[in-house]
Amino acid sequence: MTKSVKQQIIDLAVPDLEKIETALEKHLEPNLDLVKQIASHLLFSGGKRLRPLLMIHSARMCGYANGFEIDFSTIFEYLHAATLLHDDVVDEADIRRGKKAAHTKWSAPKVVLTGDFLLALALDLAARTREPDIISVIAKITRDMSQGEIDQMTKKGKLDISEEEYLDVIEKKTAVLIQGACQSGAILARSDKEKQSALKAYGFHLGMAFQMADDLLDYTATAQVLGKNPGADMREGKLTLPLIHSLTRASKEDKSWMEHVILEPGFHIEQFEQLKALLFRYKGIEYTQNMAREHVGKAKSCLDIFESSLSKKLLSLLADYSIKRKV
Amino acid sequence: MTKSVKQQIIDLAVPDLEKIETALEKHLEPNLDLVKQIASHLLFSGGKRLRPLLMIHSARMCGYANGFEIDFSTIFEYLHAATLLHDDVVDEADIRRGKKAAHTKWSAPKVVLTGDFLLALALDLAARTREPDIISVIAKITRDMSQGEIDQMTKKGKLDISEEEYLDVIEKKTAVLIQGACQSGAILARSDKEKQSALKAYGFHLGMAFQMADDLLDYTATAQVLGKNPGADMREGKLTLPLIHSLTRASKEDKSWMEHVILEPGFHIEQFEQLKALLFRYKGIEYTQNMAREHVGKAKSCLDIFESSLSKKLLSLLADYSIKRKV
Repeated sequence: MTKSVKQQIIDLAVPDLEKIETALEKHLEPNLDLVKQIASHLLFSGGKRLRPLLMIHSARMCGYANGFEIDFSTIFEYLHAATLLHDDVVDEADIRRGKKAAHTKWSAPKVVLTGDFLLALALDLAARTREPDIISVIAKITRDMSQGEIDQMTKKGKLDISEEEYLDVIEKKTAVLIQGACQSGAILARSDKEKQSALKAYGFHLGMAFQMADDLLDYTATAQVLGKNPGADMREGKLTLPLIHSLTRASKEDKSWMEHVILEPGFHIEQFEQLKALLFRYKGIEYTQNMAREHVGKAKSCLDIFESSLSKKLLSLLADYSIKRKV
Repeated sequence: MTKSVKQQIIDLAVPDLEKIETALEKHLEPNLDLVKQIASHLLFSGGKRLRPLLMIHSARMCGYANGFEIDFSTIFEYLHAATLLHDDVVDEADIRRGKKAAHTKWSAPKVVLTGDFLLALALDLAARTREPDIISVIAKITRDMSQGEIDQMTKKGKLDISEEEYLDVIEKKTAVLIQGACQSGAILARSDKEKQSALKAYGFHLGMAFQMADDLLDYTATAQVLGKNPGADMREGKLTLPLIHSLTRASKEDKSWMEHVILEPGFHIEQFEQLKALLFRYKGIEYTQNMAREHVGKAKSCLDIFESSLSKKLLSLLADYSIKRKV
């Protein structure tokens, strides 16, 4: 019997996952208890540690063997947590990873400052790599992510957002961080430019596929599995590819009904189900699935130049899993 | 006729000030117009460019002559602006540098994200120095400042804040950044540990004196000169040294009256004047002035190990000016 992709990933990742948890706790030693509480609320609430795993195995696939990959991999989980904290405040989201968002438990200013603190923590670890190129990567991540968020904010409720605009937003809000984790692994291993570029491209395609899968799940998953209500993006006025594509193909009548539902504050569950049916009928779901699948294919082909290894196997499986996951 | 300290500083600083402005504009090239607007609102509203000047002249005093000190000095102005943006949101301050605070013109989330963007800009420039020690300094600055702000927030309205707690808060919120600018100048110049330590100590004492002078001005300056209402700290529930010291020495009656005024939302101008009189009577003003003066003395003595130069002269004058300034 062949094992599922998920099971294969778990088997390969388990030895590191525990070490990542330990490292995350070890480096989170702020002087103030409150910072630790707020940061821990998010950091230790069931994250999949995808970004640390990507850095660790990118480094190892490039031959890194100096033993600091676990410690340095936490950079990307802290960065991720910092942006989630700022995003929660920005989006005024109520639920994150099935728990109340931090800013509903603590005041927004405290959450913002805790985000700043986690960013500082990531930076401090990055400085310890003694690799200025990793700092440049992190600067690019921070710059793109803040711009992407502002961009997304200014586009809220905009009904005629184009596919191109959507792709630009998800690159900045998701792909650059995943890309940066992979690229930094290659930099840490001091690998040549070709391998750095390959891992950068792998991370980009994986990140794009990952976000498209996320945007699909917002329509197709249940609240229980998702850890938050489905349709949350739409409720926040964020149009994602399944909807964007369907709007360009819908009949005049269906289009105007869809726009009405999008703009309506607090639509009903029946309306949401009806909208979902239209996303299937106008192939917005299928179109997004296909595009995500293409990115997965491209991500995997970026790994071709590397010799076989367990790390390569894991990176390939993670690409497959990015669009198969249920949550 | 001898020139005033201020005039001597201007004469020495003018050649660089224009270059700093040009560099600040050059590096602020975000893709999004909105970010540029929000950032410019604060960045180009009459900042004194103290932090860039400190880095430039610290580097030159240590013999740096590679020509990048102006570009790299902007790191500390961007960092400063980033923290001001986050602080404005955190404090809900209405006026900054005589202008409406950014968050009253744009939504708080946009201001937070623009702060993140400026931090990323600082980081990107820092990476270009190729000096991991400068990155570590910036990580420490970011960490301490976010913790200091949280700390200050949790102490808001606390009437029994000790002198020690006050000193810890101002170190984190002001001194670490000024200290970091000076220290980074020494690192950029690749100077020895002794000189690095001396400039680090100089920056610390200058920063402490600078913040104490600021806290004094909040009581002694006029709204017109200050660019914001005096008594703003107290209005926000922040107790600073003039008040903290006076409270420990006041009669039972005066103490309870002072506490009443502090806790009262929107006290009257007469009450403020009366409180000021008590700060003079109980020597809170004098005590703070003396302590600031001591820090200035220590800052200047840190410069003893350096040979005479125009940069050394300027750093010494800046220490004098930190407590003489009117705004």
